[in-house]
Amino acid sequence: MSQFTNLDTLRFLLYDVHGTQSLLAYDRFKNFDKDSFDLLLDSAYDWSARHLYPTYREMDEHPAYYADGKVHTHEILKTVFKESGENGYIGMYMDAEDGGMQLPYTISNAVNHIMEAANNHVPGYLGLTTGSANLIASFGNKALKDAYLPHMLNGKWSGTMALTEPQCGSSLSDITTSALPTEVEGTYHIQGQKIFISGGDHGGVDNIIHLTLARIKGAPAGTKGISLFVVPRYLAQPDGSLIDNHVVPVADFQKMGQRGYSTVHLVYGENAPCQGYLLGQPNQGLKYMFQMMNGARIDVGMTAASTAIAAYHASLQYARERRQGKRIAHATAPPDESQTLIINHPDVRRMLLSQKAINEGALSLLIECSVLDDISLADPDEQKRKDAHTLLELLTPMAKAYPSEACRDAINDGLQILGGYGYCMDFPLQQYLRDIRIMSIYEGTTGIQGLDLLGRKVWMDGGRGIELLSERINHTISQAQSISTLLPYATQLQKSIANWQSCHMHLAKFAKEGDHIHLLADATTYLMMTSHIIIAYQWLKMAVKSADLLTISNEKQHFHQSMIDTMRFYYKYELPKTKSFHDTLMSQDHITIDMDDTTFAF
Amino acid sequence: MSQFTNLDTLRFLLYDVHGTQSLLAYDRFKNFDKDSFDLLLDSAYDWSARHLYPTYREMDEHPAYYADGKVHTHEILKTVFKESGENGYIGMYMDAEDGGMQLPYTISNAVNHIMEAANNHVPGYLGLTTGSANLIASFGNKALKDAYLPHMLNGKWSGTMALTEPQCGSSLSDITTSALPTEVEGTYHIQGQKIFISGGDHGGVDNIIHLTLARIKGAPAGTKGISLFVVPRYLAQPDGSLIDNHVVPVADFQKMGQRGYSTVHLVYGENAPCQGYLLGQPNQGLKYMFQMMNGARIDVGMTAASTAIAAYHASLQYARERRQGKRIAHATAPPDESQTLIINHPDVRRMLLSQKAINEGALSLLIECSVLDDISLADPDEQKRKDAHTLLELLTPMAKAYPSEACRDAINDGLQILGGYGYCMDFPLQQYLRDIRIMSIYEGTTGIQGLDLLGRKVWMDGGRGIELLSERINHTISQAQSISTLLPYATQLQKSIANWQSCHMHLAKFAKEGDHIHLLADATTYLMMTSHIIIAYQWLKMAVKSADLLTISNEKQHFHQSMIDTMRFYYKYELPKTKSFHDTLMSQDHITIDMDDTTFAF
Repeated sequence: MSQFTNLDTLRFLLYDVHGTQSLLAYDRFKNFDKDSFDLLLDSAYDWSARHLYPTYREMDEHPAYYADGKVHTHEILKTVFKESGENGYIGMYMDAEDGGMQLPYTISNAVNHIMEAANNHVPGYLGLTTGSANLIASFGNKALKDAYLPHMLNGKWSGTMALTEPQCGSSLSDITTSALPTEVEGTYHIQGQKIFISGGDHGGVDNIIHLTLARIKGAPAGTKGISLFVVPRYLAQPDGSLIDNHVVPVADFQKMGQRGYSTVHLVYGENAPCQGYLLGQPNQGLKYMFQMMNGARIDVGMTAASTAIAAYHASLQYARERRQGKRIAHATAPPDESQTLIINHPDVRRMLLSQKAINEGALSLLIECSVLDDISLADPDEQKRKDAHTLLELLTPMAKAYPSEACRDAINDGLQILGGYGYCMDFPLQQYLRDIRIMSIYEGTTGIQGLDLLGRKVWMDGGRGIELLSERINHTISQAQSISTLLPYATQLQKSIANWQSCHMHLAKFAKEGDHIHLLADATTYLMMTSHIIIAYQWLKMAVKSADLLTISNEKQHFHQSMIDTMRFYYKYELPKTKSFHDTLMSQDHITIDMDDTTFAF
Repeated sequence: MSQFTNLDTLRFLLYDVHGTQSLLAYDRFKNFDKDSFDLLLDSAYDWSARHLYPTYREMDEHPAYYADGKVHTHEILKTVFKESGENGYIGMYMDAEDGGMQLPYTISNAVNHIMEAANNHVPGYLGLTTGSANLIASFGNKALKDAYLPHMLNGKWSGTMALTEPQCGSSLSDITTSALPTEVEGTYHIQGQKIFISGGDHGGVDNIIHLTLARIKGAPAGTKGISLFVVPRYLAQPDGSLIDNHVVPVADFQKMGQRGYSTVHLVYGENAPCQGYLLGQPNQGLKYMFQMMNGARIDVGMTAASTAIAAYHASLQYARERRQGKRIAHATAPPDESQTLIINHPDVRRMLLSQKAINEGALSLLIECSVLDDISLADPDEQKRKDAHTLLELLTPMAKAYPSEACRDAINDGLQILGGYGYCMDFPLQQYLRDIRIMSIYEGTTGIQGLDLLGRKVWMDGGRGIELLSERINHTISQAQSISTLLPYATQLQKSIANWQSCHMHLAKFAKEGDHIHLLADATTYLMMTSHIIIAYQWLKMAVKSADLLTISNEKQHFHQSMIDTMRFYYKYELPKTKSFHDTLMSQDHITIDMDDTTFAF
């Protein structure tokens, strides 16, 4: 079987670069040790290799489809849900008292990385079940928790997040699904439609619990009038039997990728009343949902990075086996050499290193975010918790958008390595490329991430997030400055940061003047510039750690040299892109604002 | 019906920017006038709207497939071939004495643009028929011409180019298909396999003529021993009946896109002798084939640009109809405005203009190349013919690679505008994105184009191509300098060119030292940098022309303002990318050469 990720790299990032083992000092994680983490990662890899990886292609060839009132999915989902329930893969980070494993997010996300790399069509079903169970655990009363959590965490029932409606995609303030109070307190009749509901129906479980945003009759307009409801597909009766709750799938969207992951159109209460149970307080729905949003966005970033890492391994395997052409004349190459392995062509190496640099840089950022999430939850020091949360908030748009965008380019390079074969259905590269395309749309498009970053996160708490980020980057730069081989890269990063700061000051003027349109028109460019700086920081941090470890022991020399080589690649081919982002952001030409609509008449 | 291209833009590029009407002065084109060109364009649009555009989605949903010894394709191909034969769409640029229309390449390519925009799965069948007929016309004796040209040009038979074999993709010197002389002079028995043969079998015609590269027994090794053969699927008998020639399709590659365009695996002479007729002289096959290669590469670039232009129109239509979110607070926007059309969001405008800037810049370059092709063929002045050919040779790698790469990014932006709907099979954006992905692989990958440019074209004739290009660019810059509103852009382009020249001088050192590996390791980056400069030159030329025409008349004010706006966009968002390419090319770090293979062990 082909490799779909590399656990050595994952462990290097977890332990050496991001110090995940330090989380063990927290009371919350006292039942674990490093060995238990490692055991979990190994068994998740084995389990994924057994159930997920072998079904990856099949789920694409036989997509989920709607027929006879339900969505039909691959048979493996039954096994996946059953064994995930048994193995604790649902609710890994949730509190033990709610039935979770109470693992660090960091380890839960690392397990998620392994599963997503094996088959990105499957873990979303589990992740949404965890996410919706966690909403019930966080905001539900005892009755709701008792009714739903055990079934969801043991893999018998799954969960969804039902936000989007036909008339509102990115703009949730326009939700119209309605909730009418019944005579039973906390119980409402839900009416409306939801679209693009991932895992909204499938054959892996007996019941599906839709965490649904809706407006209670008479609620205020806009985002302040949205409440969150628990809406089960079937109502459990005292005898354990299930009866229809009239939230019914009416279609499965057919997509260009992730075809095994259902994307469902749901209709609530059309022919008979559909019951929903208010979760928490009325009109707090968006607030509750957005408490989960950082996590959901990091999940999407992780899916993108993991899909691209699997694609990297597939293209690497091909490059190591395929012979084609001659080596470019080179002092050390025999002139009469016959066909060479394509991995010896510099342009193929460029495409391999480009993948490695983008993907592992993204994975490192996602792990940094995960550790911050754990600190913000479990550190005993309130200021540390607060700072970690602030920095996590700042980093989340990049952790979501960078993998969604750059890892797609990385897979594109992977496909190119295979030439014509890469475009054929017999090889997996085309599937990885189709699958990853949705990631820049899920959970807030790249454009929305840019607005979140530049319209909100950058200025939050008087810019505290940027301050904390700068401290971390400067710390890494000063470490690199003390290692002679890394000094040039530290200097290069400093220059790029100076460029970034001039953009920042330029934009701050607009922010100060309340000139939102000039502040935000190029928010996507700012997001990508910031992302490239942050990934450069990840690579410098990795290189510092590898250089440090090489002074201690030569045992893993090749591994650490590989990390340093990949950092060099990033600084030669990727970090320079910040120069062009700088010029775009500093331009006095506001074409997308000033232009006339008639420009699009042709 | 939706629009798939804009004929006003096409005519502006043909006549105003690139002076296609000046070709009418040549003796070769004396039977035409501008009206006849326009009539042809209009009728090609109508014909494409009737037959090609309506079948675009169907050809994707019901892909070509192999069964019962043949490849089954969409029924429309029968009509397409029949009517293309009647309308003269096959062999448009070929000599009248060979049965062609003897049109300028420029007009033939403009017709091709229209057809490709309507449905990129179809024109390849016609283009390959023209290309292979033209090979027979150029190098065949009278017997071959008489036997094949009439049937091919009237759409009864089609043609293919059979180059690639399982063990050689980009590297044609490794071809092993063999040709054994028979007792009949010029007739050989062909044995071997060819893969990835576009249009290698389909249901649109009675017979298919495979222009096949093979080695005559005893021929020299490598590229010098390859000959070109005419190998018909069926042998025509004196009575007009067709008998099997034992070149048989054995599979159709299933692809992620262009699924209506068959991609066939052919086996020659396995169970019975397969006859092939030598075209021209022995061992000249690659030379003959490569005389067609500039044209084939420009065709691929045109397919990419045209596909992306159709995608632009689809995303534009959506952006004009879809309401979502509020306008970013702006002095002129009503604060209580309800959902706005998404075309009013700056980031959506950015994605629309990005498409327009990339696609129309690419189309302009392709038309410039087409005009050069016509000059090199038909100008009475030998030096002008030679210069035009030299410049065309230089520009071809960019004309092929830039649309293949950048127009894919453009379609990616188009899909993003539709959000989740863009990812769904109900909307065409996902199909455009899947279709275009092959363009950077067809007829020499982007990596191969880079090697062709930096390893050969740049230094050819002592750098005459670069000299001619610089003359043209400088002429446009000096025109722009005399128009006050365009002066800043002229200055920006000059600075970018200075950067490009420093890369050039840097690389010239390696070339001089014969250090091929350091010269060529970043050939792809050099190719992309040069492409961005050349597209910036296209846009400045378009803006100069629009500014000129605006001083004469306000009749098409909106059109010309649109051109100038799009130029501004290119100079703000795209041209600055040359700065990062510069830094990559000038870097002292030769990581892809120096690195150890063990870097890829992880």
